[in-house]
Amino acid sequence: MGAPPGYRPSAWVHLLHQLPRADFQLRPVPSGFAPQEQEYQQALLLVAALAGLGLGLSLIFIAVYLIRFCCCRPPEPPGAKSPPPGGGCVTWSCIAALLVGCAGIGIGFYGNSETSDGVSQLSSALLHANHTLSAIDHLVSETVERLGEAVRTELTTLEEVLAPRTELVAAARGARREAEAVARQLQELAFWRGVPLSPLQVAEDVSFVEEYRWLAYVLLLLLELLVCLFTLLGLAKQSKWLVIVMTVMSLLVLVLSWGSMGLEAATAVGLSDFCSSPDTYILNLTQEETGLSSDILSYYFLCNQAVSNPFQQRLTLSQRALANIHSQLQGLEREAVPQFPSAQKPLLSLEETLNATEGNFHQLVALLHCRGLHKDYGAALRGLCEDALEGLLFLLLFSLLSAGALATALCSLPRAWALFPPRNPSASCSGSHLSEPLFPARLETGPPPRSFPGCRRRPH
Amino acid sequence: MGAPPGYRPSAWVHLLHQLPRADFQLRPVPSGFAPQEQEYQQALLLVAALAGLGLGLSLIFIAVYLIRFCCCRPPEPPGAKSPPPGGGCVTWSCIAALLVGCAGIGIGFYGNSETSDGVSQLSSALLHANHTLSAIDHLVSETVERLGEAVRTELTTLEEVLAPRTELVAAARGARREAEAVARQLQELAFWRGVPLSPLQVAEDVSFVEEYRWLAYVLLLLLELLVCLFTLLGLAKQSKWLVIVMTVMSLLVLVLSWGSMGLEAATAVGLSDFCSSPDTYILNLTQEETGLSSDILSYYFLCNQAVSNPFQQRLTLSQRALANIHSQLQGLEREAVPQFPSAQKPLLSLEETLNATEGNFHQLVALLHCRGLHKDYGAALRGLCEDALEGLLFLLLFSLLSAGALATALCSLPRAWALFPPRNPSASCSGSHLSEPLFPARLETGPPPRSFPGCRRRPH
Repeated sequence: MGAPPGYRPSAWVHLLHQLPRADFQLRPVPSGFAPQEQEYQQALLLVAALAGLGLGLSLIFIAVYLIRFCCCRPPEPPGAKSPPPGGGCVTWSCIAALLVGCAGIGIGFYGNSETSDGVSQLSSALLHANHTLSAIDHLVSETVERLGEAVRTELTTLEEVLAPRTELVAAARGARREAEAVARQLQELAFWRGVPLSPLQVAEDVSFVEEYRWLAYVLLLLLELLVCLFTLLGLAKQSKWLVIVMTVMSLLVLVLSWGSMGLEAATAVGLSDFCSSPDTYILNLTQEETGLSSDILSYYFLCNQAVSNPFQQRLTLSQRALANIHSQLQGLEREAVPQFPSAQKPLLSLEETLNATEGNFHQLVALLHCRGLHKDYGAALRGLCEDALEGLLFLLLFSLLSAGALATALCSLPRAWALFPPRNPSASCSGSHLSEPLFPARLETGPPPRSFPGCRRRPH
Repeated sequence: MGAPPGYRPSAWVHLLHQLPRADFQLRPVPSGFAPQEQEYQQALLLVAALAGLGLGLSLIFIAVYLIRFCCCRPPEPPGAKSPPPGGGCVTWSCIAALLVGCAGIGIGFYGNSETSDGVSQLSSALLHANHTLSAIDHLVSETVERLGEAVRTELTTLEEVLAPRTELVAAARGARREAEAVARQLQELAFWRGVPLSPLQVAEDVSFVEEYRWLAYVLLLLLELLVCLFTLLGLAKQSKWLVIVMTVMSLLVLVLSWGSMGLEAATAVGLSDFCSSPDTYILNLTQEETGLSSDILSYYFLCNQAVSNPFQQRLTLSQRALANIHSQLQGLEREAVPQFPSAQKPLLSLEETLNATEGNFHQLVALLHCRGLHKDYGAALRGLCEDALEGLLFLLLFSLLSAGALATALCSLPRAWALFPPRNPSASCSGSHLSEPLFPARLETGPPPRSFPGCRRRPH
């Protein structure tokens, strides 16, 4: 028969859930999802703060490296023919770092779209659940109204027609009582009526937030892509001002990357805690928000053999009442119609109403069954805990790669730029004339410095 | 209330569906999905053949370009100091082409994973449908067996106990008849029993094919990535043998890219035809394969207000019969138990069976309702026609980009390679010693030729 595909926590959830957590006093914090507790909030903030630490360390490293490079280089004898060793390697390591950054951007785009997919799966499941809940409400209202209408008009007419024979009037009265009982039972099946929590509203809120999150990441990714491409262009054209501007931009993007990494890490850790056992948390939260009884909520959230249908009894009673109305109407048709032909019209109309009610009843049984809503719950969890979490981890990888790549580029760019030859009016790739104090000697005696292939110089 | 998220053909489906189709005699072919018709097969083959044409044209273009470059260059005066103009641009255009190829590879990875997602959504929907169908089957068997057991044991005992009073025996017989009627009605609700088509088997077949398709694309993408990276490495290290090997590999990957493009284009066109109106085709196909009546199939495949539940009457009859059994048992309990205390045990046992049967009946009503299976159908269609088609279009874009990039690289590589300087034993990046007949003069009189930044040469 094969189990239906439900939600099971993935390996990533287990892995992240097992990481140790600590609060600001570095006391261990249990890894159960409890966003309202201060200790847990502190643990997540601490995870985010690790990225801040990383940013600080990488900025210090870059500063130390560059200061060492600028101030503590061994003095170069004037007139030395050899350029500083490793200059080409600097440019190439810068290019390699930028290419790694570009690969990271590709991963980032993938992760962003994956997260967006997961969240849209969540909101589509919420929309579907909302549709089911409103359909139950609508169906109950429609059926109850139709039954009430039939009781008020056709059954009253029937009782008036059958007035001469008291035992037939009693049967009609019995049918009226049963119909009223069915209406009462059905009324109580619309369990979501008047509940203050609307899945539609939640879905809209989630989509709204996700739209801005998605846009922010796309802008960050495009910014980093532009920085990488313009830096490569600056290196190719040996344009100092472009490389300087891009160095500053790289610094900005480095800060943004570490910032996003902090947010992603904290979200991923929190999400893994939520996803490792979502049922209890969701059940408690929904109970608080809706005030529904726990047997209804566990029926829908667990939906297994152990939890019995809380509507079972009401459904059975309604079903029996409907069958009783049917047999009473059959009896009336047999007994009364030969004697009172005018009773036939209300009886036929009543039978039609009964058939429609039975159809609606079957639809209601199907809607109330936990299968549909539980499937939506599973889809929402899979969206959030599989796709969105996976996307988040890809975004984390992007942030890591881009932080590494940008730090390397920031270390190499000033060195590569220092290697650029000074501009010459006859150079085919024109750029701003910047003095190049680092290689005054080479320009006079050495061969023309190695240039980038895109920037061919005409001999003069 | 908001409509439930169902399947609607996307803009891509409409766009692809509107492209003109022709058979081998170039007569127009209607764009309805008809894979069994020869004309339609020819139209798809023609779409695939367009890629073959593209391959041929690009090979001819490359050959003409290279022959022109080798044989028809203007004679260079010996001792000219200037290197052939545009040499650097050749290297850079080659690098740019390879970078475009890398971007295409990123897009290809994304498209491959998107297609795989879509197909796994399809097979998961099929698995879910299979679970529902087997659950119906299982539930019907279980309920019928339980009812039969009750009729054979408890009702027989009851009849024996009540034998002295014939009107009570008649009531018990009535209950037996109703129970047998319920069992008969339920038996006919297991509509998928004995149907030769198993969604589980289809899901397994689809997953099997998809696994190999995914793997083939991953291998193609990795091959192209390696070719791009090694070509870049060859250009950076100015290693002739590496560039030659990579030129040959590029040619191979070019052929593979055009081949995959043909397959993707034909599949995308066929899929768009299927997806523009899948209901009719799927309905006919399922009817052929399963032999089920069209009202059952259209109930599940369309599932709207216009199609009535084909099980409605059976369900209503079973429901009434169950209610009748209940009232008969209630009557027996009232009448018989005071006189025959030994009737209480079988009566209680029968009521328990009745309650369980009513529970199963409600579950069966929920399973038989079109909502669940139609939702699986919608999910399968969305997987195939949204995610898989979108992924296929990304793969098409990858093939186009890589075909363009590889053709450019194939044009530029031999020219770039001809610009490599001959190797020198003192060069820090050692390579094979290949003579470079293109620049004999420059080596003697000009400055050292421009080299790639990774390959710094020590002056000697």
